Amino acid sequence: MLGEASINLVQLPTHCQSALDRTHPMPALSVADALRQICEIVKPKPAEELRLVDALGAVLANDVLSLRDAPPFHKALMDGYAVRSGDLTGSGQTLTVLEEIKAGSLPTLFLEAGCASQIMTGAPLPDGADAVVKVEETSRTEQQVTLLGEPVKPGTNMLRQADILRQGDLALTAGTALTATRLAGIAEIGPATVTARTPCKMGVLATGDELVPIGASPAAGQIVNTNEILLTNRIVAAGHRATGLGIAADNLADIEGKLRIGLEYDLLLLTGGVSAGVYDLVPQALANLGVNQVFHKVEVKPGKPVWFGQHQRPDGSIGYVFGLPGNPVSTLVCFELFVKTAANCLLGLPDPLPKSVSGRLVNAGANHGERPTYFPAETTWLDDHYQVRLVKWQGSSDLQATLEANSMALLPKHAGNIPAGTAVEVFFWK
Amino acid sequence: MLGEASINLVQLPTHCQSALDRTHPMPALSVADALRQICEIVKPKPAEELRLVDALGAVLANDVLSLRDAPPFHKALMDGYAVRSGDLTGSGQTLTVLEEIKAGSLPTLFLEAGCASQIMTGAPLPDGADAVVKVEETSRTEQQVTLLGEPVKPGTNMLRQADILRQGDLALTAGTALTATRLAGIAEIGPATVTARTPCKMGVLATGDELVPIGASPAAGQIVNTNEILLTNRIVAAGHRATGLGIAADNLADIEGKLRIGLEYDLLLLTGGVSAGVYDLVPQALANLGVNQVFHKVEVKPGKPVWFGQHQRPDGSIGYVFGLPGNPVSTLVCFELFVKTAANCLLGLPDPLPKSVSGRLVNAGANHGERPTYFPAETTWLDDHYQVRLVKWQGSSDLQATLEANSMALLPKHAGNIPAGTAVEVFFWK
Repeated sequence: MLGEASINLVQLPTHCQSALDRTHPMPALSVADALRQICEIVKPKPAEELRLVDALGAVLANDVLSLRDAPPFHKALMDGYAVRSGDLTGSGQTLTVLEEIKAGSLPTLFLEAGCASQIMTGAPLPDGADAVVKVEETSRTEQQVTLLGEPVKPGTNMLRQADILRQGDLALTAGTALTATRLAGIAEIGPATVTARTPCKMGVLATGDELVPIGASPAAGQIVNTNEILLTNRIVAAGHRATGLGIAADNLADIEGKLRIGLEYDLLLLTGGVSAGVYDLVPQALANLGVNQVFHKVEVKPGKPVWFGQHQRPDGSIGYVFGLPGNPVSTLVCFELFVKTAANCLLGLPDPLPKSVSGRLVNAGANHGERPTYFPAETTWLDDHYQVRLVKWQGSSDLQATLEANSMALLPKHAGNIPAGTAVEVFFWK
Repeated sequence: MLGEASINLVQLPTHCQSALDRTHPMPALSVADALRQICEIVKPKPAEELRLVDALGAVLANDVLSLRDAPPFHKALMDGYAVRSGDLTGSGQTLTVLEEIKAGSLPTLFLEAGCASQIMTGAPLPDGADAVVKVEETSRTEQQVTLLGEPVKPGTNMLRQADILRQGDLALTAGTALTATRLAGIAEIGPATVTARTPCKMGVLATGDELVPIGASPAAGQIVNTNEILLTNRIVAAGHRATGLGIAADNLADIEGKLRIGLEYDLLLLTGGVSAGVYDLVPQALANLGVNQVFHKVEVKPGKPVWFGQHQRPDGSIGYVFGLPGNPVSTLVCFELFVKTAANCLLGLPDPLPKSVSGRLVNAGANHGERPTYFPAETTWLDDHYQVRLVKWQGSSDLQATLEANSMALLPKHAGNIPAGTAVEVFFWK
């Protein structure tokens, strides 16, 4: 979540319903209002006790305190010789070598004046020592070591016990996402388990008689179910867990049967069946199964028919459902804006909103419409800024346009013609 | 790989060996030279036939051509009425409704003059039709539909067959990484399998008598094996496959036994045992097993002792081995710079080098040394640029410093004091 600015809810346009939109009495929401509703509705999922090795991508539900000092002892940072810095007089000085201390073993002898102990990186310093001279700056005979460089100061090439963190110190706060470095950091100073929320389990169910599975040859009028492979892989790439639930035909019985399975997931993503057509049976099936609508339709292009709801399971737990539009680019845009935000809320992240950067258009764009448009774009870093190339795109069903894109550029509503060089907000698909 | 500039090999400093470095006759390489050697040595792994659903993160070994037109038929982009645009005269016009065409079904009737057919998003247009009027812009009785808006032009709310891609067109070229959108795009227009190179399988083996596994209580002088959890999770986060191989003690027999298992992986990552200490047995064990050194030591801070080699297996295949320094931040830096580059070469990516952006320091830094320093940093997007905060960091064993960092900032060698506001190159840990 670091490294990118979040959508500013205050600056985004508020709701504006098209006068022609007469089929649904509920007004379409602005993107900002839809995001706000998601953040209000979606509660953090229950936390679990997780082994550190199973916790990548989970989010801490509790603070983590250090159970020990880091480092736990005065520690050599280089291979060389532990010395008493106060003894050192200058280059060419010779000291008697007492013993050899390797990492994992303990010193056995106090470091007397005029002495040194050979020491390996990571090993504990002997009592009496307060610095390490690098092996490269010494010359060794069997019993003695000659120092070739200038005298070193106390603390050179070593860390003192608790220099980095003291037992009981706060290491990480609740709400922190567990990256590789953070998991390793906890392993160093703390327990082998954490109390955290795991990445979300999401089910993906496509609806529509026109769909055939990948690998089948579509007959005339049929199309391949690309939304399942698109969504399951976006889910995995975002660090969550995905299960493809196949295709539900355009009839209530099939939709309801497959929905029952899907409602067990933290988040169920449906695609298709939420626009205004008479065969769009999904909202009805959801109502029959006790899934309550939170919103339907958002002023976003593509993706306007997006549907969001929640349901309570027999055990009292809450599940959430998105009905995403059937066209693949609409589904992608709604996943990036809305589904990922809901997943972030389930994880208990303190800043769940979509993250963006700004970049400069290298070609001209336009938005004469009444909805903000999230336009497929290839965004690349050039010297000191992102350059944003809007790809050739023929609308929400034009999945091929996304093959050369890695992001979506926000072209604000009523922007009119947008010349090359204009700064635009960009959301990476990553 | 999109969105970030690559290291410029030409601009980076060439080799500069410290006069004090007398323990290894081979001079340390510059970062650029080490990367160049990796790119020369590491060959793409064999390609496999992969099902699309198994191919996330794989890299195409062959071009992908479209096996069909996209879209495969003239296709409605909205729910509404298929019409003959030439028939339309103005608002209020009434047309006779012939039939209803849903997605997945075929039109049965030619669209005569004065007629319309109800059509759903994604459905094929009937012969004779050349545009779609949105349902929201119509009023319907049982047999007839009245158009409420202005006449539409040919092509409105529809795509013509092959508008996006024609059968036989080049869709994606060899060397392209398979993202969610690209997998969905291939599913739409092509085969259910691709010939591609899978993400790398990497084994991680830590060495050192001082190490104890996560969950064990370290005795005096011992430390937790944090490198395995650090590396395995960085590998997974980078899209590859990781196996932790545990800890090898500081004796040749144990190291060689565990190495034999590790050498089966595409890439074997060792940590510890490659600096100048007398207990650093790893190079010897590798030589005994027929792993040939490519380089040892790079002018990089932290991470100088990094070791790289290759070996040929009995079946003739080539494996690669990195010996990473034992200190965790050194291991992390070498993973980001060198291991990921080798993995990119194994995948056959055309631009395998580390990717960076530039940002402005928000606090002052310094590098008075002879090696470029990769300094843990928290990099965040602010308005129109990245701001880079160098975290408090006490050297290569200070893993705790990385908990609040998400990136490493390159402080060039001999830079001296670097004031806040200076532009620096940043490599994200992602």
